[in-house]
Amino acid sequence: MEKPKEPKIITDKNEMREWSRSMRAQGKTIGLIPTMGFLHQGHLSLITEAHKHTKVSVVSIYVNPGQFSPNEDLSTYPSDFNGDIKKLMSVPGGVDVVFHPYNLYDYGVGSVGHGEGRVEKEGVVSCVEDGGGSGHETWVTVERLGKGLCGKSRPIFFRGVATIVSKLFNIVEPDVAVFGKKDYQQLRIVTRMVRDLDFAIRIIGSDITREKDGLAMSSRNVHLSTDEREKALSINRSLSKAKDAVEMGQINSRDLINSVIESIQEAGGRIDYAEIVDQESLKAVERITSPVVFCIAAWFGKVRLIDNIEISG
Amino acid sequence: MEKPKEPKIITDKNEMREWSRSMRAQGKTIGLIPTMGFLHQGHLSLITEAHKHTKVSVVSIYVNPGQFSPNEDLSTYPSDFNGDIKKLMSVPGGVDVVFHPYNLYDYGVGSVGHGEGRVEKEGVVSCVEDGGGSGHETWVTVERLGKGLCGKSRPIFFRGVATIVSKLFNIVEPDVAVFGKKDYQQLRIVTRMVRDLDFAIRIIGSDITREKDGLAMSSRNVHLSTDEREKALSINRSLSKAKDAVEMGQINSRDLINSVIESIQEAGGRIDYAEIVDQESLKAVERITSPVVFCIAAWFGKVRLIDNIEISG
Repeated sequence: MEKPKEPKIITDKNEMREWSRSMRAQGKTIGLIPTMGFLHQGHLSLITEAHKHTKVSVVSIYVNPGQFSPNEDLSTYPSDFNGDIKKLMSVPGGVDVVFHPYNLYDYGVGSVGHGEGRVEKEGVVSCVEDGGGSGHETWVTVERLGKGLCGKSRPIFFRGVATIVSKLFNIVEPDVAVFGKKDYQQLRIVTRMVRDLDFAIRIIGSDITREKDGLAMSSRNVHLSTDEREKALSINRSLSKAKDAVEMGQINSRDLINSVIESIQEAGGRIDYAEIVDQESLKAVERITSPVVFCIAAWFGKVRLIDNIEISG
Repeated sequence: MEKPKEPKIITDKNEMREWSRSMRAQGKTIGLIPTMGFLHQGHLSLITEAHKHTKVSVVSIYVNPGQFSPNEDLSTYPSDFNGDIKKLMSVPGGVDVVFHPYNLYDYGVGSVGHGEGRVEKEGVVSCVEDGGGSGHETWVTVERLGKGLCGKSRPIFFRGVATIVSKLFNIVEPDVAVFGKKDYQQLRIVTRMVRDLDFAIRIIGSDITREKDGLAMSSRNVHLSTDEREKALSINRSLSKAKDAVEMGQINSRDLINSVIESIQEAGGRIDYAEIVDQESLKAVERITSPVVFCIAAWFGKVRLIDNIEISG
């Protein structure tokens, strides 16, 4: 049996870039898997996917304050760095580097906060503080794709995602980056951003990993009580039923959506959104005649879960 | 005498990136000078500046529709590609590549316009068309720095600048990029963007080049009548006087500004703005006790000119 590979841990962004450039100088291609840590099998499957495309791989572990609003769960976002490293070592082939920076918004001037839930001036709100004129103030937005679905209840979320992903791309300089399809809108936004800003990076979407009972894996699942977890199974069950119904010829989105909402509400979930959208444009689709994705966000207790299912149409 | 170097002309972005990567593989550093063409001595001085820092140099010539509003002068923006090449060959050391793409917003899907003055949906207005869900929709904004000075009368201008500069950075992958101080706000915005998004690029600001009579060089000067051109000299004259006044102990911004406005208006100019701001934060300064820059935008006939002067304070 292969000896588990211990990843090199890099916290400094310049050291990270130097490592990548030394790999590139040796002709090695680089895969990046951006994560916020508290890894589960879903993350590990992204690494296995990356191994198919590149010679070396970098997993970033960074809880990005730029994508959380002060009223969101940044402070309770779970973490377990040592456990993460062990899990990464269990992946066949392992990973070469874990990039684990302390604060990617600290530029050594002014006072730039890290996850203190401060409020920026001029109505722009994220957990990254405006450091009195010298703080972070550059944001990448993917206008239309970022407005619907999760963008409705989390208006600064995708701005924060696109910005941190741009930063990671510029620091790690990967050839390929792998994102999970569970965050479907995020995958589409990053793909569009890469095209629109001409990043020389190939984006790969990787299938959702589920628990045996069908629950989509998420770092937030740990916050679910046993009871809530059982109720949350209604999401995947109803989505699967909807897919079966389409395959049986039911192509009216409104009927399919109503039936999924009903099932989740009966189980005790509170719907944030339930929408059937085009797989590329994420525009709502009324009749399913081309590839779509059925996207759900719902609350169970204090936990907001998202899930989706691709339907070929 | 050295034989003038003929630049390689590249129009394809992938070919451009391959060229840069082949240079980097040979250990050569790359300087980028982004321009919109119709070059003058001011541009050529940026190339001379770039030569001090890098081994090879790329001049991009691209009139960026993303930074023009439909009511602005995109369609009349002057161009003279053959003349530009001749001028570039006159620079000692020349340039290695002229990157001259046709349309950096055409992604081969939908219909993406090029300078047709179309209006995007949802109130966002630039000369880049929304191609029905598949068009360009990613924008880089430097929030606070982009709001004042030129940002007031040109609300989408710096969004367009930061976006096209990001695209050029990702295509050319330079080590150094040179920008003129005439576009002072642009220089500060690009510098901040590079820091905030972790681009591995050093930004160098290069001094304003002036005609013998003091007029700041600009591609737009060609649109001035002889009479307007004479009147426009009031900008630099009054700015120089203001600098002298500060050196003589006058540190009240309001008085200095009023006197400059008066001089330019007397000469027949129409002021867009006249402000004294901090050199780094671009925040307005009431009393000059630290390094500032006095920035002016004014119309002479149908031509809007900008100029500025740094004052050490």
